[in-house]
Amino acid sequence: MTSARFDVLGIGNAIIDVLARTEDDFLIKRGLAKGSMQLISEADSEALYHDMGPATLISGGSAANTIVGVSSFGGKAAFIGKVRNDAAGEAFAHDIRAAGVHFPTQAATEGKATAKCMILITPDGERTMNTFLGTCQDLGPQDVDADCVKAAQITYLEGYLWDPPAAKQAFVKAADIAHQAGRKVALTLSDSFCVDRYRDEFLDLINGGTVDILFANMHELRSLYATADLDTAVAALRRKGLLAVVTCSEQGALVVEEAGVQSCPAVPVERVVDTTGAGDLYAAGFLFGLSQGRAALDCARLGALAASEVISHIGARPDRNLRDLATAEGLLGH
Amino acid sequence: MTSARFDVLGIGNAIIDVLARTEDDFLIKRGLAKGSMQLISEADSEALYHDMGPATLISGGSAANTIVGVSSFGGKAAFIGKVRNDAAGEAFAHDIRAAGVHFPTQAATEGKATAKCMILITPDGERTMNTFLGTCQDLGPQDVDADCVKAAQITYLEGYLWDPPAAKQAFVKAADIAHQAGRKVALTLSDSFCVDRYRDEFLDLINGGTVDILFANMHELRSLYATADLDTAVAALRRKGLLAVVTCSEQGALVVEEAGVQSCPAVPVERVVDTTGAGDLYAAGFLFGLSQGRAALDCARLGALAASEVISHIGARPDRNLRDLATAEGLLGH
Repeated sequence: MTSARFDVLGIGNAIIDVLARTEDDFLIKRGLAKGSMQLISEADSEALYHDMGPATLISGGSAANTIVGVSSFGGKAAFIGKVRNDAAGEAFAHDIRAAGVHFPTQAATEGKATAKCMILITPDGERTMNTFLGTCQDLGPQDVDADCVKAAQITYLEGYLWDPPAAKQAFVKAADIAHQAGRKVALTLSDSFCVDRYRDEFLDLINGGTVDILFANMHELRSLYATADLDTAVAALRRKGLLAVVTCSEQGALVVEEAGVQSCPAVPVERVVDTTGAGDLYAAGFLFGLSQGRAALDCARLGALAASEVISHIGARPDRNLRDLATAEGLLGH
Repeated sequence: MTSARFDVLGIGNAIIDVLARTEDDFLIKRGLAKGSMQLISEADSEALYHDMGPATLISGGSAANTIVGVSSFGGKAAFIGKVRNDAAGEAFAHDIRAAGVHFPTQAATEGKATAKCMILITPDGERTMNTFLGTCQDLGPQDVDADCVKAAQITYLEGYLWDPPAAKQAFVKAADIAHQAGRKVALTLSDSFCVDRYRDEFLDLINGGTVDILFANMHELRSLYATADLDTAVAALRRKGLLAVVTCSEQGALVVEEAGVQSCPAVPVERVVDTTGAGDLYAAGFLFGLSQGRAALDCARLGALAASEVISHIGARPDRNLRDLATAEGLLGH
């Protein structure tokens, strides 16, 4: 195994977030499940945009947010994801490159528009996401840059990749290349509804050794093992011999390994403004720590810090330099 | 004079703000004067965008921000400004309409792109603006909807309209229609460099009675009267017989009338995140108060409150409902 050019490579849907504040009534009238992500057509996305309030546009995408977080911690980061050569795609490419991330994927010159996610933020800071996948549906194995995968210590994949059909093949190809190069593969379960859609396939990935590191929140983990009891789900996961992180909102997180389960508290915030990206940035801190050879609980502390930063403002990308923040908190050396 | 369908009509440049954090060094290397607005070409705007950090896109434009603020206070508001039918233009139109503002201007179907303002936010929260005017340069008298002007208690115009040549004619036409209908005309001086460019013309507007209500910050007012001494400038202004508001950042504001000068303190904020829109939202609160027949000092309090809200987050449009905020602060009745 050669030394790694990248600490973490992310593969995921490349999305522009369209964030607007809304009241709970708006969700109820439209039958939207608060806190979830649902896929919508381009026509539905236009209709929703028409009806929603004034919006802020910021680059998003779950794995992309994580990778930008890794870079903000000072990690060497790369991202693979599909945009169109339209205004939204150009903004996505600009933002991820401006964050210091290597982004080799060619923009599509025809076909569907760049993906957009209409994010409705309720007064409690919770976000409800409505995604038009657009050109993300054309991400396929041909977009997996083998050299990039081989060059990354950890390849991080989002469960949402199961939604666009060809992306699943890209996922499997990337995991194979990574393991053949002696690298690690990480997966986030993304969303409890996403787990509902692909439960058996996600279990196969976990049970079959495709995944070395797993990120899930408590809802997703309960959905994975189809149980209302978190302890039962954690016990089932523990037997799998991988490193898993289960985030539990303000109750902190559990680091689950075969050897045992450790808990790490959340970092309290003054006011939760927008929870978009909380899980993504938790993964960023954790993965950055892992890539630096830190112990799991240290990684969890970096994750909790990054999550606390991103829920303190609108948008799913860090607003402050995470390395500076972690250094100020004594979690990283000068 | 018939009763007014609108409390305030704004006429200004319709702009999408592209906001990014930056270090002071970046400004120094490029010779950018911190806190100012400079006009740049499309090519320069693309080069600057390439070099700047990850960005957030939010609708902006000085008078447009003010008008959205008036609407957030519960005022009946309208806006005239030119966009192209591109992605940025569609976002601008969506956002201003979603804020409850009547926006009758037709989008251009050809010609230059929608205006963009690259806003660099330094760690002190100060913003430095670089504007590509784009299709705003095509706003002209033909875009001034006479019925809309006649129907507004106050027509509010931004000094920046002096930059695109045809917009100046739109300004003069709107002021004439407003006065013939017995309405008031308000002007903001916009920026001290803008005052440098058009000092004599702005003085003519003030001295000739075209303007009834004037907004300026202390830098702009000193520039207008070409003096380093604010008291001298205020004394000169006081003789003109109009109602003027001079904002002085954290030192509050002066309400200048022929009868005397009153001062009103600023509303302190915990952390200044981004000063973009501070003056615009001050004007929003003041104009809304005026349109409701309130005394000048009450209007100034509403202005100070709105300014404090907008500098507490990224972007120049209010993130919270200003009517609710003012009600909670006891400045408006339930």
